[in-house]
Amino acid sequence: MRAAHLTTGARLGRRPGRKGAKMSQQHGFVVWFTGLSGSGKSTLSGLLAPELRRRGLKVEVLDGDEVRTHLSRGLGFSREDRDANILRIAYVARLLARNGVAVITAAISPYRETRQTAREMIEADGTPFLEIHVAAPLEVCEARDVKGLYADARAGRRPGFTGIDDPYEPPLAPDLRLETGDETAEACLAGLVALLEERGLAPAEVRR
Amino acid sequence: MRAAHLTTGARLGRRPGRKGAKMSQQHGFVVWFTGLSGSGKSTLSGLLAPELRRRGLKVEVLDGDEVRTHLSRGLGFSREDRDANILRIAYVARLLARNGVAVITAAISPYRETRQTAREMIEADGTPFLEIHVAAPLEVCEARDVKGLYADARAGRRPGFTGIDDPYEPPLAPDLRLETGDETAEACLAGLVALLEERGLAPAEVRR
Repeated sequence: MRAAHLTTGARLGRRPGRKGAKMSQQHGFVVWFTGLSGSGKSTLSGLLAPELRRRGLKVEVLDGDEVRTHLSRGLGFSREDRDANILRIAYVARLLARNGVAVITAAISPYRETRQTAREMIEADGTPFLEIHVAAPLEVCEARDVKGLYADARAGRRPGFTGIDDPYEPPLAPDLRLETGDETAEACLAGLVALLEERGLAPAEVRR
Repeated sequence: MRAAHLTTGARLGRRPGRKGAKMSQQHGFVVWFTGLSGSGKSTLSGLLAPELRRRGLKVEVLDGDEVRTHLSRGLGFSREDRDANILRIAYVARLLARNGVAVITAAISPYRETRQTAREMIEADGTPFLEIHVAAPLEVCEARDVKGLYADARAGRRPGFTGIDDPYEPPLAPDLRLETGDETAEACLAGLVALLEERGLAPAEVRR
């Protein structure tokens, strides 16, 4: 896994996790994906969630689009509205994680300061927060353009689109950076799971 | 407990709960308080939460005012905005309860149909949902007027206030009705805890 470098190995000063199924009853945590539209946040969430469930953890995925439907209908894409959306995700992630759930968030979350606020809210309960930069370059995301959003944005039909005419502020010190433009999703997943094991958050795999 | 009559004793057809601490790891549920401003929802939440924690349950309280700050800033008190707020509470309650948390909600939630939608969302996961009518009469709530809101509403400074110039639709078949105008908060709590024990949701008390 070339690009999965650990930048802040022991941010919370947690001791290495006790192994075993019991752990899942005690530790919640938040895996906070951040990256451009099309970078692979949802794909990685869809791989990570079942992997963690197989290891006995309770898992919830808070996907950006789904959360906008349930918690943020009516909000737009101004800085203020984006921030409100992200802080709502953080609020829900916090409640879940402090009750033992492994929470995966998959929203662009373009602003550094807002991600930091989310981290602080969640760490306030002693809950581990891992910022994972899903770092496909804009050219790759735009070439994929799975939902046709970049084409819309370039055509001016979707103003304020992150990466085109709205900023994306990459993390300066993410817990992990996944180069999803170069690596397969499976390789990225492996790097992420290795990090969660190192931090004592994911029990070692039970079967294979 | 004169007024704590059970109206729908076995709505979910759940078998009586297994006793013991293990239960708390498995069953989440939602206690959904509904009632006028000043009826005692927050007071009862503040008594029920520690009582359930003493019995080994994980508990979160979603208080109407707090949720408006975190999830619904900008929403007003139109029917549409009230409904959006209630459904956001239901969404979060659902996520928490299906992960084993005893969730207590304390919002006026004035509309019958919206409460029914909340129930259906939450029961869709097999999560027990208990609608608890905190049923102090308007005169009592207005006489208390702890926050001065009724005085504001009568003076026209707070238009669309539930019970004054906005409707409150009392539950037709609540899981429990608590006559908080007649009974002490402690007596109401006892009736509620008895119901939770009957439904197998709260383990029998460990100490006294």
